[in-house]
Parts: sequence; structure tokens; C-alpha cells
Amino acid sequence: VSRLTCSISISLDGYVAGPDPGPEQGLGAGGEQLHEWIFGLASWREMHGKEGGEHNVDSDLLQEGLDLTGAIIIGKRMFGGWDGPWGDEPTLGVWGEDPPFDVPVFVLTHYEREPITVGQTTFTFVSDGIESALEQARAAAGGKDVSIGGGANVIQQYLRAGLLDELQVSVVPVLLGGGVRLLDDVGDAPGKLEQTRIMESPSGVTHLRYRVVR
Amino acid sequence: VSRLTCSISISLDGYVAGPDPGPEQGLGAGGEQLHEWIFGLASWREMHGKEGGEHNVDSDLLQEGLDLTGAIIIGKRMFGGWDGPWGDEPTLGVWGEDPPFDVPVFVLTHYEREPITVGQTTFTFVSDGIESALEQARAAAGGKDVSIGGGANVIQQYLRAGLLDELQVSVVPVLLGGGVRLLDDVGDAPGKLEQTRIMESPSGVTHLRYRVVR
Repeated sequence: VSRLTCSISISLDGYVAGPDPGPEQGLGAGGEQLHEWIFGLASWREMHGKEGGEHNVDSDLLQEGLDLTGAIIIGKRMFGGWDGPWGDEPTLGVWGEDPPFDVPVFVLTHYEREPITVGQTTFTFVSDGIESALEQARAAAGGKDVSIGGGANVIQQYLRAGLLDELQVSVVPVLLGGGVRLLDDVGDAPGKLEQTRIMESPSGVTHLRYRVVR
Repeated sequence: VSRLTCSISISLDGYVAGPDPGPEQGLGAGGEQLHEWIFGLASWREMHGKEGGEHNVDSDLLQEGLDLTGAIIIGKRMFGGWDGPWGDEPTLGVWGEDPPFDVPVFVLTHYEREPITVGQTTFTFVSDGIESALEQARAAAGGKDVSIGGGANVIQQYLRAGLLDELQVSVVPVLLGGGVRLLDDVGDAPGKLEQTRIMESPSGVTHLRYRVVR
């Protein structure tokens, strides 16, 4: 069964981005601290075409996510278009000519755009809603899971709609004091959460995984 | 050394109380779910003069907290006076005639009041600030730790002032969707957090402990 999953880093105070995120600083002030545990990992480096790096709980976890995922859904901001229409020379995305994904990516947007292939990655732009995006991603995932890459807004929409099957938060021991919260105003729509796995890492990050039971 | 500690239950979305907390419903809508993991524990039952109950990771953790704590600081609302002056017949507190504490309790309030002893517990009302309350609690703690009982507002004040030494959050797998957040607007004042212990419990709750490094 192809599940809809999400694995994301949050600060202890629950933010996925710090204060004042914007086109120049997508993660907001201090937000880059949320991802520092990832950059040295062997699985991360391999994903970006580099050798070496650390093998530990964190790299295993990242690799497991890569192995299970057959398609990814992200929001327009995360892709690299901020708010508003695409413009005359639409961006190739924040990853430039060589995006790190080896699976199809579906980008939620209010503005229509033809699919593009950048490096090995095909980006399909979906403007008719989250359910359509999920349906298209499932069809492309070849039986594997569909993973939501973010941002928070996209994750919240799927959670509220009761479509998310698994949520994994990597709690980073830092307080951002403001910014974009992962779980804001989600109501009780998503159903019950069941803790399925806890992994403690030498990086000081704890990975909490929950199944959404409906 | 007598540390200032805090151990508190939060929902996965970061709330210590659900929506619309008030005098009739101190934990807000759904907030009681945050504490369900505690009620069946042997150490909790003993604290309330009852026998039996479960022995597990959770009861050990609770007992450890009780053993290390020599005094407790709480806010006026948690004590059982809501906002405003104490009135002509001031409450004995939400615990009635037999409070579960066997150490001195210091209650932060804007309104002066003489100390009272209820059952085995002496409540001292402190109206000259959080530092004064901490000083008095330390003097009463006999070398043991001082623990902040809550609410969120009190914990935030100590965190912002850089006075908290250890924070333990027990993450309960539930989404409250609104209410009172534990870590709201704390800024980066408190310094760096260092993860010191993670405990996973059969109740589905995960206990994350952090040292505040200044």
C-alpha cells in the first residue's frame, strides 16, 4: 500500500522555519539550525552526488526514507517560487540545474504551469488541489510511498484533510522563538496518533514517528 | 547544587492546555488527555495516598522527579485563584484540604497573601517577582532541586530570564489544535539546549530531557 508520509525537522518550540521567512531566506532567521544534523550524513551526501560522510542512526533514517519514497509533494514556496504568478522566466527551482530528487516531484500551486524536467527530476505543477496532487503522485510512485516535503502549510492541509498516514518529526534541541509552526491550527481532524518508533541520535536530535489512525 | 527544573506534559502540537482554559476547566478542551499517562502509575497513586498502580518507565520517571525536588513554584492560576485579587474568602487551592505535595510550594501572584498550611503543604505567596520566588524556594529546598509546576506563563518567564537549568517535556501523541503553548515567544534568551535523556514509554508518551547551557 502506498502511504502518504511526512518527515520533517522541527525546533523544540515547534517551528519548521524561524522568524521572517522570505524569498531570500526560506528557512527564516536561525532556521538553518534545523537541518545541520543532515548535512554531514553519508546518505545526504550521496543524494547530492558526493562521497563520504557519517554513517549513524540519522543517515540510516534518511536512507530509509529515500528507499521507501516513490514520489514527493511540495508547495510552491519550497520549490522556489514565492507568492504570486510564475512570471515570464519561471524559476527552475531553488535546487538549480541539479535537483537532489531521484523521484517525480509534484508542486502545489495556484498558477498553472507545464511540467519541467531539470537534471533527473520531473516537476509537475498541480493547480487543482491537494487530492489531485496526491492521486497523481500515487500513480507515479510505483507502489512506493508518497512523501510530503513541505512547507508547513502543505503538511497542515493534508493533515486536516485526514490524508496523512505517517508523521515523523525530528526534534532539534533549539528554540527559534518564532517563525512558521509545523502544527498550527490543525484541529482534531486528523484522528488519533499512535507512536510507532522513537530514535535518539548522537546529534542531539530525536526522531518521533507517529501513525495517524482513522 | 540546587537546580531549577521543569517537567511537563505537552501535546505533539506543543500545548499544555487545550482551547478555552478557564476557572471551570483549567486544562482547556481536551487538555486532560495530556495527563492520562500519569493517573494509573504507582508513584502517582502513592503521592495521593493510594496503594497499587503500575510500575514502569513512567512511574520511575515521576518518582525520580519527586525524589529530587525540594520545593515547587507554581502560578496563581494553577494554585486555583484565577485572575484578579484573592477575595474575602480566598481559596485553599484546587487540591482542597489534602494537597498532594510533600514539599513547600511557592505561588507567584500579583496580590499579597499570608502563607497558609493545608494538610501537610505550606503555600507561600510571592508577589515581588520570579527571582524572589526562586530565592525563597531554594532556601526551603534543603539542597534539593526547585521544580516549576506551571503554568506555561510561569515556565516561560523563568526560561526567558535564563534561570531554568533543565526542561523535560513529555510528548503525548495527541493534537489539541489550539490552547496554551508551552514554548511561545521564548526568544533565544535561554541559551543552548543540550539533549540529556530520552525515555520512551509503553503509554506512547516520549520524555525528552534537555539541559539549558548558558
